[in-house]
Amino acid sequence: MAVPGDLVKVTTKDKVYEGRFLQRPDLLEGKYTVIKLSSGYNVGIVNSDITSLEVLQAHMPVTKESGAESVFQEGLPTVALLSFGGTISSKVDYRTGGTYADYTADDFVKMCPELATIANIKARKVMGIMSEDFTPADWKSMADAVAEEIRAGAAGVVITQGTDTLHFSAAALCTMFTSLPVPVVITAAQRSIDRGSSDAFMNLICAVKAATSDMAHVMTCLHGSINDDYCLLIDGSRVRKMHTSRRDAFRPINATPLGKVAVDGEVEILGDYTARGTHELAVDTSFEEKVALLYVYPGADPGVLDYYVGEGYKGVVIAATALGHVPTEDSSGSFIPAIKRAREAGLTIVVASQTLYGSVHPHVYSNLRKLSLSLGCVFLGDVLPEAAYIRLGCALGRGEALQSPEVRSLPNEFLN
Amino acid sequence: MAVPGDLVKVTTKDKVYEGRFLQRPDLLEGKYTVIKLSSGYNVGIVNSDITSLEVLQAHMPVTKESGAESVFQEGLPTVALLSFGGTISSKVDYRTGGTYADYTADDFVKMCPELATIANIKARKVMGIMSEDFTPADWKSMADAVAEEIRAGAAGVVITQGTDTLHFSAAALCTMFTSLPVPVVITAAQRSIDRGSSDAFMNLICAVKAATSDMAHVMTCLHGSINDDYCLLIDGSRVRKMHTSRRDAFRPINATPLGKVAVDGEVEILGDYTARGTHELAVDTSFEEKVALLYVYPGADPGVLDYYVGEGYKGVVIAATALGHVPTEDSSGSFIPAIKRAREAGLTIVVASQTLYGSVHPHVYSNLRKLSLSLGCVFLGDVLPEAAYIRLGCALGRGEALQSPEVRSLPNEFLN
Repeated sequence: MAVPGDLVKVTTKDKVYEGRFLQRPDLLEGKYTVIKLSSGYNVGIVNSDITSLEVLQAHMPVTKESGAESVFQEGLPTVALLSFGGTISSKVDYRTGGTYADYTADDFVKMCPELATIANIKARKVMGIMSEDFTPADWKSMADAVAEEIRAGAAGVVITQGTDTLHFSAAALCTMFTSLPVPVVITAAQRSIDRGSSDAFMNLICAVKAATSDMAHVMTCLHGSINDDYCLLIDGSRVRKMHTSRRDAFRPINATPLGKVAVDGEVEILGDYTARGTHELAVDTSFEEKVALLYVYPGADPGVLDYYVGEGYKGVVIAATALGHVPTEDSSGSFIPAIKRAREAGLTIVVASQTLYGSVHPHVYSNLRKLSLSLGCVFLGDVLPEAAYIRLGCALGRGEALQSPEVRSLPNEFLN
Repeated sequence: MAVPGDLVKVTTKDKVYEGRFLQRPDLLEGKYTVIKLSSGYNVGIVNSDITSLEVLQAHMPVTKESGAESVFQEGLPTVALLSFGGTISSKVDYRTGGTYADYTADDFVKMCPELATIANIKARKVMGIMSEDFTPADWKSMADAVAEEIRAGAAGVVITQGTDTLHFSAAALCTMFTSLPVPVVITAAQRSIDRGSSDAFMNLICAVKAATSDMAHVMTCLHGSINDDYCLLIDGSRVRKMHTSRRDAFRPINATPLGKVAVDGEVEILGDYTARGTHELAVDTSFEEKVALLYVYPGADPGVLDYYVGEGYKGVVIAATALGHVPTEDSSGSFIPAIKRAREAGLTIVVASQTLYGSVHPHVYSNLRKLSLSLGCVFLGDVLPEAAYIRLGCALGRGEALQSPEVRSLPNEFLN
């Protein structure tokens, strides 16, 4: 009988399939056989149609922790592969059609033996939770686990987690690693790894390649298009999930990608970068959890800001409209008095833009001057609201004041 | 002396300029003369450099309300032009560099006489506020003013307001007009009308053209690219400001544009549409103001939901992660108990996606089933969080239950 990872040849009355035998989803047992074709696509074959199943090449365990037969190859760099759950670790529950986190980093290596041709993979499951259940405490665990692998000599680290809040984790690692000697690459999947045409394998392969590259950055590595042609490497603090389900959901915001990785090619570096080994490892995982992210809109209730003050919060990021506006007229539920009360209570108030693209600016409109000059709100330029939330939590955790970037009196872009 | 709207020839020692004389920004008086070139760009000429200023053609007042000399042309449709403030109505305060709302719809016609060649313009200033100070009550006033002009026989209505919350107003009109016989077109500017290279004139010209078109939709009309080449017409409930300052900031989300308008061309209709005169006018401006829009993220405080319940709110739109997730684990500050309490208190809980692009789905993950099946949250498909907020306010205002769109057991897009 075939085991996961074996290269198999499956013959039905109509067709012959060659590919890697995958773990059968539990509830398909007895109904379908799932194999991964060399194209990267998974195919499910109805068992009653199968006339023969032949093992062409037995699976060779390739991870240090997956067994005694580990075949670490001399000359290949070591990449730590840390799994934290999410869709990439999920199995389909065919009773309900839903999915749940189950696979580990070690399983990835079994299911995707190509990884072993790029690097010696040191796989470890750190946690197995869905993306929406991540907390600031988990970002600390993630940073600690990454630091541990770097100290142990990893040439690079790949992290897998759920996609929904991946950009928060990426921004957290960016801020927590104040100095980084090797690549730290976060990847994921929009379709669970046991589904037909999962994006997991290509993302994993490209991420491991990126982890062996020269770029000592925290970066995400996910599909750059809806085709299985290349992944984009994006600065972890400049990326956001911009689609519920497309495989190219992660887009660079206010930045160009750091690089591209073709599934059958090399890492292409697209601009300036910090080279591997330029800096030492330095990590500070302090995070003030009493911070919030607040979206304003017509009819928004400024009382929510007072709620945060009452609950002992230390800072709030306001996802303001465009250049950084909040309602300012009494008749429209002005936020100005509530911001004043929050500032008097010692809270740091940070302004970012809900347009996502572009930059807030403290001086263009008279109303903005009230926020910036009179009330001392920090205008965080073109930083995403989500990354601003991370920066605020980290700054307050470290006891540092968050600084506005230097502001030109009027941006040329706005004048032209 | 020239008056605004006059075609003038300005000669300096170095150069000759021909264009429309604009109202001088008050604080430039004595320093600069501002004229609009035929390219659409404004230029400011230092007065001390001017050797002569010749009026080539006196400005002809063309609006019904701008004076006794109104020259309504037979055969042209009548378009109502209603101004509500915002940057398009703003003057630069050159002392501070800031801007403030001042110009009215009537001024637009004086400054942009081309409008009178497209339609007979009936200009009216309804209010003059900045975008961030819009309230649900202002959307009602806007819908009432539009309805009044349609009942008075306008062939189309153009609205100008600030950009920041324009997509909220557009979605509000979409929902409040349950049936519409003529085009209602919302436009604006990212640069104030008295600045060099303001986008206001092209947007206004294209909007008036769109208002004379066959499309009886509520739609936005703003720059489609950063060049002054065309505007996009976008369904008012499918549009969002996606950049703080670029002139092409308004993008269609989960939709293709309804049409394009070239500044020197016709309205190009890009797909199916409802033709002018197909339906009667029907408007319902009821809006329950006790509704909120709440963004979730790792570390978000579910107590905010309890705050809204305590304040007597009737409904909350949760801008959830991707397919519609909220934190569900006790350890991560689960929103499930707070949503349960809100549902028991009678609140409608709507789920939309903070990715903006794509569609929430109530069944893909086990955690989503808790929200949809057990707690009766309404999953609003691919409706933007901002438009969901409007739909919720309108539905509750009318005493209607908000319905989830029909859901396939698993979307094909997700499986592929």
